[in-house]
Amino acid sequence: MLPDELIQGNDSRILFYILDGLGGTTDPERKTTELQAARTPVLDSLAARSETGLVVPVLPGIAPGSGPGHFALFGYDPVENNIGRGVLEAAGIGFELTEGDIAIRVNFATVDDDGRILDRRAGRIPTSECERLCSIMREAIWLGGGAEVFVEPVKEHRAAIVLRPSGAALADGIGDTDPQETGVPPLPISPQRPEAEPAAELLRTLLEQVTGPLAEAGNPSYYPLLRGIARYRRYPRMHERFGLSAVAVATYPMYKGISRLLGMQVHEGASDLAGQLAAVEGYWSSHDFFFVHYKATDARGEDGDFDAKVAAIEEADAALPGFLDLGPEVVVVTGDHSTPALVGAHSGHSVPVLLHSAVARWSGVETFDEITCARQGTLGTFPMMQLMGLALGHADRLQKFGA
Amino acid sequence: MLPDELIQGNDSRILFYILDGLGGTTDPERKTTELQAARTPVLDSLAARSETGLVVPVLPGIAPGSGPGHFALFGYDPVENNIGRGVLEAAGIGFELTEGDIAIRVNFATVDDDGRILDRRAGRIPTSECERLCSIMREAIWLGGGAEVFVEPVKEHRAAIVLRPSGAALADGIGDTDPQETGVPPLPISPQRPEAEPAAELLRTLLEQVTGPLAEAGNPSYYPLLRGIARYRRYPRMHERFGLSAVAVATYPMYKGISRLLGMQVHEGASDLAGQLAAVEGYWSSHDFFFVHYKATDARGEDGDFDAKVAAIEEADAALPGFLDLGPEVVVVTGDHSTPALVGAHSGHSVPVLLHSAVARWSGVETFDEITCARQGTLGTFPMMQLMGLALGHADRLQKFGA
Repeated sequence: MLPDELIQGNDSRILFYILDGLGGTTDPERKTTELQAARTPVLDSLAARSETGLVVPVLPGIAPGSGPGHFALFGYDPVENNIGRGVLEAAGIGFELTEGDIAIRVNFATVDDDGRILDRRAGRIPTSECERLCSIMREAIWLGGGAEVFVEPVKEHRAAIVLRPSGAALADGIGDTDPQETGVPPLPISPQRPEAEPAAELLRTLLEQVTGPLAEAGNPSYYPLLRGIARYRRYPRMHERFGLSAVAVATYPMYKGISRLLGMQVHEGASDLAGQLAAVEGYWSSHDFFFVHYKATDARGEDGDFDAKVAAIEEADAALPGFLDLGPEVVVVTGDHSTPALVGAHSGHSVPVLLHSAVARWSGVETFDEITCARQGTLGTFPMMQLMGLALGHADRLQKFGA
Repeated sequence: MLPDELIQGNDSRILFYILDGLGGTTDPERKTTELQAARTPVLDSLAARSETGLVVPVLPGIAPGSGPGHFALFGYDPVENNIGRGVLEAAGIGFELTEGDIAIRVNFATVDDDGRILDRRAGRIPTSECERLCSIMREAIWLGGGAEVFVEPVKEHRAAIVLRPSGAALADGIGDTDPQETGVPPLPISPQRPEAEPAAELLRTLLEQVTGPLAEAGNPSYYPLLRGIARYRRYPRMHERFGLSAVAVATYPMYKGISRLLGMQVHEGASDLAGQLAAVEGYWSSHDFFFVHYKATDARGEDGDFDAKVAAIEEADAALPGFLDLGPEVVVVTGDHSTPALVGAHSGHSVPVLLHSAVARWSGVETFDEITCARQGTLGTFPMMQLMGLALGHADRLQKFGA
């Protein structure tokens, strides 16, 4: 498979500076996108001496979740490797998944005496209460020879369940039990294909075992809503595919989880770009691929706050020189998808990308934004999953293909 | 399959304003394309506030027929779903095809006493004469237990034959009998693969049965040339794939036929853009996808008449405001392929596309043509079959992909 079969080692370093949800769209009042409105002297100056273009995370018009977006960024086909929410949740808290595990995201809800949902998040209980509920569940569950069960708190009302089959393998393909509304009972466990019935049966048993103890644990009663029920399979690691010793310096659990699934070392403890820079400096001599993840661009886009997203972009721009000063051979600045403030959610718009290296063609653009990337970019518009090969090529980490 | 699995409903409306054969190429005398030469104030003004780009119907350099061009427009892989000419002809006259039917396009020709073709179109006989010849054929044909046979007039010298297997399924893969020249006899029925032999044998019998009666029916003798022999298979309908209630407002039978094959409601009776607008208004509250087909751009391109194609484009531009005033959430303006006047035929050039919605990035282009779409478009150049997903995304009709 390309580009994997062409990998050659060297001592170059690649920096992926990922501004989550970077891409925006034109605000009809302001007549600019967030990136056009932002003052980004560092990116603008870099873009002139860089290749620029647009990347399509999945397909035109399709808004990816964070899983597919990051898989595509790191050169993994986002459709073939579509990762379930449960797997993402378990990986995010550092749970060591084993091939064949069924991972489930849990929301602790509250229900009335007739079992109808009162609050899908149980009033966003503190994490300590979540830990107590997880303990109660652990004590109540025993699935016999079917599966070993792990129940792990995540944060506030969120937890993760992992079923590890003791005997026969378990298939996924089971719908969420979260009806996404209140005043109605949770949905029943419903397998969407016959192979999923054994796992469904185990989950029915599990719910029967915990319903009583969780009802007694609170007033109103607690109840676990199950979401994103997904089988884990091992992905080839980045060092296996690309020979890269990669480290992820992210501040949010989900991005750490994704990085872990791809075999990156995951830094713990950084909470802002200054901390992330310090962390990257610490790994500079031991690693050659650096994934720096910045969340605020996506968060402010999801808030629908144009000006706040502009400010978030400007903050990331101002922090970039510290990373550039380390002297990475290849710098990629892009996002895992677009989150236009106008949309207030992940969107299917393409994402502006900048790639800097000593052998980059100079786009000569004077600003870095969606429109200049489209109009004047040297890279055109291409599938995001091809970006990693491009970065490897610029790092001289790919042999010639064919004779 | 993407984007189908992400479909969510809402009350948005999507307008596909299709100028057949829209794309052109540079005329060396005038140094412009047809679209550059045309005065298109409506499209120009819309383009500034729209995404623009270029779409490739099949592959660069490949000129598609109307079938593949429209299949790609509506999000169907034009190669995987390559539709036979016979199927297109039968669907065009509203014939209700059944899975497994073998559909054949017929040209009534005239032949001399030695069976050599005199006129491949029998002097473009009137449709009433075609109807008489079809009756004669119907009376003469009896294929026993092999297949039920339908013979239907189309227009002038053109008709359609449908073989509906009574017992074992029939395979297609049989060459045309039309030698595409006069003074020679028709080609024999020649199966191009062994599985096609049973259908070939039925067609040989059919030709034996009709040759005598058709020879007696005219002077010189009539003879049916068989073309585009193709097995029909049912395509998933647009409402099945995309949850869209689609209506086609076209003026030519072939485009109605294609629309019918994809499950669109087909409007009858509109003969020009004014009539088409009135029709669309009538469907506005009952449908959510509107396919408006304009033929003149292709016809004038095929005539090789640059100025006439320019005039056709201007006519379509002038009619567009009526459709825009209805307030569709998403507007797509493009063609099913290019028909440059310089070529005088369908060509393999990419096709300019404009997509307008409330969340579109503003390309800021001041004119809508092939060159500005390439230079300044926000969408880049992409496969035409991805356009439908883009339109659905802009209509907020796609859920997020993955967690």
